Amino acid sequence: MFSYKITHKSSECDARLGELETPHGVVTTPVFMPVGTQATVKGVSPERLEELGAEIVLSNTYHLFLRPGHKIIEGLGGLHKFMGWQRPILTDSGGFQVYSLGDLRKLTEDGVKFKSHLDGSSHLITPESAVQIQKSLGADIIMCLDECTSYPSSFEDTKSSMELTLRWAERSKEAMSKEVLAKDEMGSNKQALFGIVQGGMFDELRRESVEGTVAIGFPGYAVGGLSVGESKGLMYEMAECALSLLPKEKPRYLMGVGTPQDLVNLVENGADMFDCVMPTRNARNGTLFTSLGKVIIKNEKYKDDGAPVDDDCTCYTCRNFSRAYLRHLYMAGEILSSILNTLHNLHFYFSVIREIREAIIADRFLSFKRDFLNRIEGDS
Amino acid sequence: MFSYKITHKSSECDARLGELETPHGVVTTPVFMPVGTQATVKGVSPERLEELGAEIVLSNTYHLFLRPGHKIIEGLGGLHKFMGWQRPILTDSGGFQVYSLGDLRKLTEDGVKFKSHLDGSSHLITPESAVQIQKSLGADIIMCLDECTSYPSSFEDTKSSMELTLRWAERSKEAMSKEVLAKDEMGSNKQALFGIVQGGMFDELRRESVEGTVAIGFPGYAVGGLSVGESKGLMYEMAECALSLLPKEKPRYLMGVGTPQDLVNLVENGADMFDCVMPTRNARNGTLFTSLGKVIIKNEKYKDDGAPVDDDCTCYTCRNFSRAYLRHLYMAGEILSSILNTLHNLHFYFSVIREIREAIIADRFLSFKRDFLNRIEGDS
Repeated sequence: MFSYKITHKSSECDARLGELETPHGVVTTPVFMPVGTQATVKGVSPERLEELGAEIVLSNTYHLFLRPGHKIIEGLGGLHKFMGWQRPILTDSGGFQVYSLGDLRKLTEDGVKFKSHLDGSSHLITPESAVQIQKSLGADIIMCLDECTSYPSSFEDTKSSMELTLRWAERSKEAMSKEVLAKDEMGSNKQALFGIVQGGMFDELRRESVEGTVAIGFPGYAVGGLSVGESKGLMYEMAECALSLLPKEKPRYLMGVGTPQDLVNLVENGADMFDCVMPTRNARNGTLFTSLGKVIIKNEKYKDDGAPVDDDCTCYTCRNFSRAYLRHLYMAGEILSSILNTLHNLHFYFSVIREIREAIIADRFLSFKRDFLNRIEGDS
Repeated sequence: MFSYKITHKSSECDARLGELETPHGVVTTPVFMPVGTQATVKGVSPERLEELGAEIVLSNTYHLFLRPGHKIIEGLGGLHKFMGWQRPILTDSGGFQVYSLGDLRKLTEDGVKFKSHLDGSSHLITPESAVQIQKSLGADIIMCLDECTSYPSSFEDTKSSMELTLRWAERSKEAMSKEVLAKDEMGSNKQALFGIVQGGMFDELRRESVEGTVAIGFPGYAVGGLSVGESKGLMYEMAECALSLLPKEKPRYLMGVGTPQDLVNLVENGADMFDCVMPTRNARNGTLFTSLGKVIIKNEKYKDDGAPVDDDCTCYTCRNFSRAYLRHLYMAGEILSSILNTLHNLHFYFSVIREIREAIIADRFLSFKRDFLNRIEGDS
């Protein structure tokens, strides 16, 4: 039910095209996964998401565990049915969200205790319960519970954190095997559990983490602990380090990344999967991605601008509405502002992914990358 | 460019079916106009609105005058182009919104001075400027500036308020003629200006208002000043009084009304056009209209309810999502909650209108009405 096949390789770099087969269909990689934190990609219905060309979405275990509760979702037939999305879903383990809680969490060997951001109630998530919760939700790809090391951290702290993540990865895999056997007499694996590489900002620890995680063995690997406050250069360096060491035949998922430029830059190093709130969150904040850089739609200069956000864009928003109208909707706090901006930004991200794929197939990835980065040079 | 033709009449009551021809197409009456206060029906794109079957939308002059400004909209080609809606639009005069400002407004013979709810800036709207602003916006149907009498009001206050509305109606019509002549050498009337009947809760004043307004002469008439705090019985009584006196051959628009039951009840008395924020506002507040009454989606009992909001409903929301999911989206404050609830409620309103039309055509309006009201008896 789960396999990965590389269909095209760049002759110039590590960029590659692949097919990820899941119980809910095949995903072409490189792929961008919109974030549907609370079982909805904010501002877009599943029907629109499909039209936009989304192939897989990410949802957050931490949020769904707290509200409405994974048991409720399981009782209603699982996350796909609950949110009306019949294509693949990846759920994270909740580790990163719990990490984001700061003082509200407490880590032990067993797992992580935390207080809900909703009502302050206390909870414990262990590697085993993270697997169980994600099996209740029923996503196609699920993630091991990991500890996301904070930035900056000393070598020693990063090392012990990375080692905890390794021990948790082992427990996660074991829990997964038991769960599969318990639920399914055939023992067939309907969900794929991915391991997560940590190791902070240290090459040596990234290497140890890759080796340890690969030794346990997973059908796919994620690189975590990036975009946590470090410089862009350091982020690229660490991503490249981990990507170059991961087995070539498995899908590699760069968690929480990134800008359109990040996607292009890191595909070069062999990244296959990305997720990021950037297109959807920026949309709600009135920041629009275009082929020539960002447009901050609230700017006064757009108040009587009859042109679309991006002349080259074929999305519903650009085909039908002016910058002046989008500015008006934003200033007036209208829901349609979030809707139209989100459609545009997701369309832009999927267009970038499409261009990336075409460039790999035509084996002209590096020239595409150069042109792409030059085009949006005005952007930060 | 503007005409009204009655195509079917009930043999049992004053209900009728008609065709309202406007520069942006023909509208069948009875019709429900969704409210697009700030040049958008909250939570729905124009594409979705068309799919739902909306034939005409209402937009608010007061809001657009303040933000983004009617001159900006005119410069961008008018309201239809600005909001991406190519079907007919009706704009109100701003009178009711200014009335809602309470102490922030001051009435004189000349017009109404008010302070913006956005920034406190001072403005004056006169019958003449209301026409000019609405001509800038370019709606198909525009409204005379009127004074909406507050409730309760004495006979004397209501009478002098109603008489002011009559004098303003006369000035509006004159301003309209001048505007048309100034802008269009052919003198052809591209927009229809409707008069508004006031008279508060007094039969006698409603009669005087109808007579005075009809004497001035308009291509359509609205009944204003209802649903301002009076009982449902009194509202029906006053609506019936005004509707029965208005010329049969002109369209009659009942402003700001109402519930699904109100639509059915007042079509019986000959009302042709309705507008109300109820389906859209209630949607955002989590109240859903169904064939069996209202569903308050936040109720605990829906938390694991896998059924659609309304088993009989064919809208996108009911075809794809459960009450449990809609409850989750509402509790989580997700944008998709407003989107899906709005789609459902508007679909419900348009379904009621469709049933009303079919009943008039089949000349079985009264039995339809009885069945309809029995069906949603559980509702308030």
